[in-house]
Amino acid sequence: MIGFCDCARISFMKTYKISEIKDKRILGRNVSDAGKSDKALALFWAASALEINVKAKEVWVEFSSMYDDSEPWVSVYVNNKPVSRFMITKENKMNLCIARGLNPEKENLITIYKDTQPMSGEEHHSLFIHSISLNDEGVFCPLKERKIKLEVVGDSITSGEGLFGGPEEMEWIPQWFAGSRSYGAQVARSLDADFSLVSQCGWGLCWAWNGDIKGNMPSVYEKVCGPMWGKYQEELGASELYDFKGGSDFVVINLGTNDNGAFFQPEWKDESTGKVYNHSLDKDGKPREEDCKTIIAGVKNFLSMVRKNNPNAKILWVWGMIKLGQVPSLIKQGIEDYKKMTGDKDVYSMELDSMEDVEKTPEDKGSRGHPGPLVHALAAKKIAEFLKTLL
Amino acid sequence: MIGFCDCARISFMKTYKISEIKDKRILGRNVSDAGKSDKALALFWAASALEINVKAKEVWVEFSSMYDDSEPWVSVYVNNKPVSRFMITKENKMNLCIARGLNPEKENLITIYKDTQPMSGEEHHSLFIHSISLNDEGVFCPLKERKIKLEVVGDSITSGEGLFGGPEEMEWIPQWFAGSRSYGAQVARSLDADFSLVSQCGWGLCWAWNGDIKGNMPSVYEKVCGPMWGKYQEELGASELYDFKGGSDFVVINLGTNDNGAFFQPEWKDESTGKVYNHSLDKDGKPREEDCKTIIAGVKNFLSMVRKNNPNAKILWVWGMIKLGQVPSLIKQGIEDYKKMTGDKDVYSMELDSMEDVEKTPEDKGSRGHPGPLVHALAAKKIAEFLKTLL
Amino acid sequence: MIGFCDCARISFMKTYKISEIKDKRILGRNVSDAGKSDKALALFWAASALEINVKAKEVWVEFSSMYDDSEPWVSVYVNNKPVSRFMITKENKMNLCIARGLNPEKENLITIYKDTQPMSGEEHHSLFIHSISLNDEGVFCPLKERKIKLEVVGDSITSGEGLFGGPEEMEWIPQWFAGSRSYGAQVARSLDADFSLVSQCGWGLCWAWNGDIKGNMPSVYEKVCGPMWGKYQEELGASELYDFKGGSDFVVINLGTNDNGAFFQPEWKDESTGKVYNHSLDKDGKPREEDCKTIIAGVKNFLSMVRKNNPNAKILWVWGMIKLGQVPSLIKQGIEDYKKMTGDKDVYSMELDSMEDVEKTPEDKGSRGHPGPLVHALAAKKIAEFLKTLL
Amino acid sequence: MIGFCDCARISFMKTYKISEIKDKRILGRNVSDAGKSDKALALFWAASALEINVKAKEVWVEFSSMYDDSEPWVSVYVNNKPVSRFMITKENKMNLCIARGLNPEKENLITIYKDTQPMSGEEHHSLFIHSISLNDEGVFCPLKERKIKLEVVGDSITSGEGLFGGPEEMEWIPQWFAGSRSYGAQVARSLDADFSLVSQCGWGLCWAWNGDIKGNMPSVYEKVCGPMWGKYQEELGASELYDFKGGSDFVVINLGTNDNGAFFQPEWKDESTGKVYNHSLDKDGKPREEDCKTIIAGVKNFLSMVRKNNPNAKILWVWGMIKLGQVPSLIKQGIEDYKKMTGDKDVYSMELDSMEDVEKTPEDKGSRGHPGPLVHALAAKKIAEFLKTLL
Repeated sequence: MIGFCDCARISFMKTYKISEIKDKRILGRNVSDAGKSDKALALFWAASALEINVKAKEVWVEFSSMYDDSEPWVSVYVNNKPVSRFMITKENKMNLCIARGLNPEKENLITIYKDTQPMSGEEHHSLFIHSISLNDEGVFCPLKERKIKLEVVGDSITSGEGLFGGPEEMEWIPQWFAGSRSYGAQVARSLDADFSLVSQCGWGLCWAWNGDIKGNMPSVYEKVCGPMWGKYQEELGASELYDFKGGSDFVVINLGTNDNGAFFQPEWKDESTGKVYNHSLDKDGKPREEDCKTIIAGVKNFLSMVRKNNPNAKILWVWGMIKLGQVPSLIKQGIEDYKKMTGDKDVYSMELDSMEDVEKTPEDKGSRGHPGPLVHALAAKKIAEFLKTLL
Repeated sequence: MIGFCDCARISFMKTYKISEIKDKRILGRNVSDAGKSDKALALFWAASALEINVKAKEVWVEFSSMYDDSEPWVSVYVNNKPVSRFMITKENKMNLCIARGLNPEKENLITIYKDTQPMSGEEHHSLFIHSISLNDEGVFCPLKERKIKLEVVGDSITSGEGLFGGPEEMEWIPQWFAGSRSYGAQVARSLDADFSLVSQCGWGLCWAWNGDIKGNMPSVYEKVCGPMWGKYQEELGASELYDFKGGSDFVVINLGTNDNGAFFQPEWKDESTGKVYNHSLDKDGKPREEDCKTIIAGVKNFLSMVRKNNPNAKILWVWGMIKLGQVPSLIKQGIEDYKKMTGDKDVYSMELDSMEDVEKTPEDKGSRGHPGPLVHALAAKKIAEFLKTLL
Repeated sequence: MIGFCDCARISFMKTYKISEIKDKRILGRNVSDAGKSDKALALFWAASALEINVKAKEVWVEFSSMYDDSEPWVSVYVNNKPVSRFMITKENKMNLCIARGLNPEKENLITIYKDTQPMSGEEHHSLFIHSISLNDEGVFCPLKERKIKLEVVGDSITSGEGLFGGPEEMEWIPQWFAGSRSYGAQVARSLDADFSLVSQCGWGLCWAWNGDIKGNMPSVYEKVCGPMWGKYQEELGASELYDFKGGSDFVVINLGTNDNGAFFQPEWKDESTGKVYNHSLDKDGKPREEDCKTIIAGVKNFLSMVRKNNPNAKILWVWGMIKLGQVPSLIKQGIEDYKKMTGDKDVYSMELDSMEDVEKTPEDKGSRGHPGPLVHALAAKKIAEFLKTLL
Repeated sequence: MIGFCDCARISFMKTYKISEIKDKRILGRNVSDAGKSDKALALFWAASALEINVKAKEVWVEFSSMYDDSEPWVSVYVNNKPVSRFMITKENKMNLCIARGLNPEKENLITIYKDTQPMSGEEHHSLFIHSISLNDEGVFCPLKERKIKLEVVGDSITSGEGLFGGPEEMEWIPQWFAGSRSYGAQVARSLDADFSLVSQCGWGLCWAWNGDIKGNMPSVYEKVCGPMWGKYQEELGASELYDFKGGSDFVVINLGTNDNGAFFQPEWKDESTGKVYNHSLDKDGKPREEDCKTIIAGVKNFLSMVRKNNPNAKILWVWGMIKLGQVPSLIKQGIEDYKKMTGDKDVYSMELDSMEDVEKTPEDKGSRGHPGPLVHALAAKKIAEFLKTLL
């Protein structure tokens, strides 16, 4: 082992811009020239990643970030196992060593995840990877091709909110988010699939947790990273139309939790139009007729949109990691209507184990009232097993 | 929440040298003026830590390190839950933000662990904490006193070797070590105990994994950090006698695994004396008579040494996270002999669940052939439950 | 000399917060608890500085900065000679080595200058010194007391604008400013005086280069750093009243150049009152009667203000590094009136060599149309020689 | 100018490896693939440099270094004027902003000099430039071609030793060296010439200051950077034969000062052969006959070597910045002999003004007993004027 850390050898390290690395994989939706242009690689969504396969003793990554309030966090996996996790503070580049002393004769798969979802409340939140440096004899190797492509559409649960920190943590801050540990990422690793999370905390199928009708995922589904707004994000390409390139093999949808949440919130006023929206339950504690219709139509329409962009996908709608009331029956109705309407058979649904049912100990629980590691693990297992039956 | 990240406020952050922080706790054996002098705080053992309790929005830590081959890794816990983990590369100081956006009205317990054991094969391995910076209105709060003091003496298992990385990882490098995730650290968190790991990979009670008689823990037990050698470590205080200050309430000993390992190794020659040591099993596959005697005597002597320095401790000898052959019976014999000889009643022993028995899936397994997270969790549970009965 | 750079020794370096360094000198106006509180030391004016005297092999300084557009530059002098110069980019702290391999048996005087004037057009411009680190055996030594205290009040010339860069450089940016190389700093070094520059580019005695009546130095003379505005600067203490502590031994005033400049500019409208100010020359090319009166009164009033705060000072008014028209005669009239009015004899005046007369080669010239190194050196020599006659 | 420093724009900065920058110039001897390979650019000699011409608002440079004792210093010039100077500490890369707020419509020539000579006493001394970053719209522009190529061969004087620091500084450390301020660099800037310094402190034509016969410049003249030794430097290419590519237009030789110095030193013993060399003067205070012959032959042989590699050069031998005794007459004799022997007419000689004669004030003087800025300026002027007559 002598020698791998010989100080002086660092002089001979070689730095590769992302565009110079032929053998790489970019996980998560991105702009069409991502990793090809001479710009730094911006990562957008939770669990989006740069993945490389190296024979090298030492690997450094040069990051930078920008944000107003909410800094991005990174998780690094080696051979599909987490090794490190840290935030990237703005403003200068940070050149960090993420692996040392690796066996240079052996291929090591390194995945550099953005653990943080796009923070839609602010303009500048972003994470950049500028370069990778290897020791002088290090090489990039081809990545084993993955046969399956998975997309998971959801809300904070899908973004992995609550997967760090204990149940008493109640701040809405990036350090408690971990896309890389989410059920979606676990499903992907279990199926050996390339994957994409398209998820935004607080957003729903038809409206957000507070009834805000702009907080609906279908409205941004066809963009690179629709929840991010403003001139800066535009320059990064967030608002471009996303090139689906034939679409995914599996699309898992986990929407409805925030739609349900809005039933228990005060009315919401659209300040731009003055219109007021009230989603509160009726006197029998049931969703109002019009809200039911909206959700059923929402399911149908969103399925059509997903199908249009993913013509060959098996589509699976899941719910229940946080218990919902009557929303699941509306989702099921919407799915049935959609299938009838279109003859599309490849749409499935599944209820997952809920945090209310399975979390017993503090270790099971997540932070900020969100499902913890156990619920995510169970969800991942159930979904992966089901998807395997569809292969 | 507006404002916590206002760029300009960073100008007003306040930096505190460790000696200036009155409200702090240093976990793990250290020199007597640790955290009191104007030098940076050096951390020695796996899971040694600096612990602070802050009301602050933002916390930065200034680290540095020195090493020949093996860099130190750090794990940061917030309120006893892991949040980040990263290596500290030498040579300049690294000022890293470890928490942002915390609620400044709430106390948050932050524990900054050295995840890496002292790397006895090299002269310079070391980790330093120079300062903590808080946002301008941040304050250090008193730490809730802990009633229990725990020491765990062991080998690589106790150092948390293998707790990161999958079973196929076979390099002996720091990134696979995680003292902060070890059973010992888990026991301490579960008992709300201050604790100290005194553990060294490859070392045993009487000899090391390869039969090297210098690799025995009793020979270094009374020093601050005995396995570290050379002028540099001397300056850091590693070879000073450790001030036990009345000793621990519980001492858990997990030694014997490498003593057993040496039975299956070729003979070892002490290059300084020319003497050859052969610990191989006899033709019936049993330890030789003299080795049995040495181990039994070793147990007695080490218990005496531990007792001398920990007059009020309940002492618990554990084994079995990796299956041993006949060593446990020798340990039990030694304990019995010691108890008879001294009348000391407060010595206990316990077999733990083995990796061979309980690890079923790849997720259960650790790297480098070491027990994985499941075995550590089971061991922690069993030990903690037993110790609670002794309270 | 062997050993001063031994890598491992950096572990033993000791870091001192500014408040912990007893033996230090802060040059330039500052808040009353500057260098005493546990906050970083903010430097405000051009050529303001932290000065230490060390027996140490190696000296590191931890800087940070904040700004909108204009970053601060630093010049480091060792034993009154420039050694390094660099900008401090925001946002994280920069820990920079400024001297290595010094003879640790010898005292070395190290002066860390802010080369950049307060940039009054923006809110956040600021420079901070957080700490000094010395090698482990390094010590801070008492600084030889200086007998003389000098203040120089002026405009861009006094701020050292144009002292870096060639004559073709026309951008108004910090890299062309060098307070540490200005005539004022040279006078101070030549008299072995503590000193303070109170100077602002574009400002005058009665109005700014464009006629803006708010751009007059007397209006800010009694504050710590009057030209800096806004909440952020207030927190830093820029708008506090400055504690003159008995005042300087010499006050050199070099104002009038921008008052003259405004004669050749269009009228200026005070947007807050709507009032229009026109300082253009009359048809004979002479300043208007009312402007002459204003300047003469301005001189008298400012001398009174300076005298009030510097009861024992010799006051010297200088001009001419850029040629002025009739302004000098107005200044002289003002001085005479003031002396008559008050009986104050300790006010002097002096014309300096002009860039128009003495700059012959490109090497002589400064950037941005400002006096270059030759004019500053001549001015320094003439002023220092005159002040020596007053001692 | 608004906007150039908009924080968020830094996200869009573009980083260029040296090999990606087509429009660049490398000053100083280097390996044949310097700036073409994907390795960082190593700079070897004093005043070796990377030169670029940019239209950009902001320029960052990524440096690193390695050394045992003596760190490299960098001087940055903008449009041939010094702007910043700093040391590069090892071990991680330093990404430093060297210019901000430039007019992006205007070409700015930026020269990044290694101020420090190769430090022949140590194995690892080296400086690397890894990349240049420009703001997103910044571009590299073609550099105006230079018609003249100049090489200057010498000792510490040529390396610019003593050009920083006052006369009382006596430590032999990099901070007092400034190749970028040396007479050779000044001649080059004055002739608008590309140039190379080939110079080593303490070395001579025939032996070093202490009589060491290995310290002679002819022995290393044909290598990339002959004074640097060891495996590390070999990997960098220091010991490769230098590709003269047709040679320089002017070669200035300033050797002889250390040959003279050895006359006043004790005898020197070659430890590898046991042979003792004594260069002390004879009883009349004159160099011994054999030394005179050696020097005369040395001049002849070195001129032949220089001519071989620079077939079209005007060769000028200079001396006298530090006064020599009889060495100049020996040099002149050697030149005459060479010219006679070869018929080569293009060899000239010239005595320069000495520090003993022209330095009057402390400002004139250099540090470590070396010629100061005045002597270098006079030498540069005299040499440049003479070379112009040869054009």
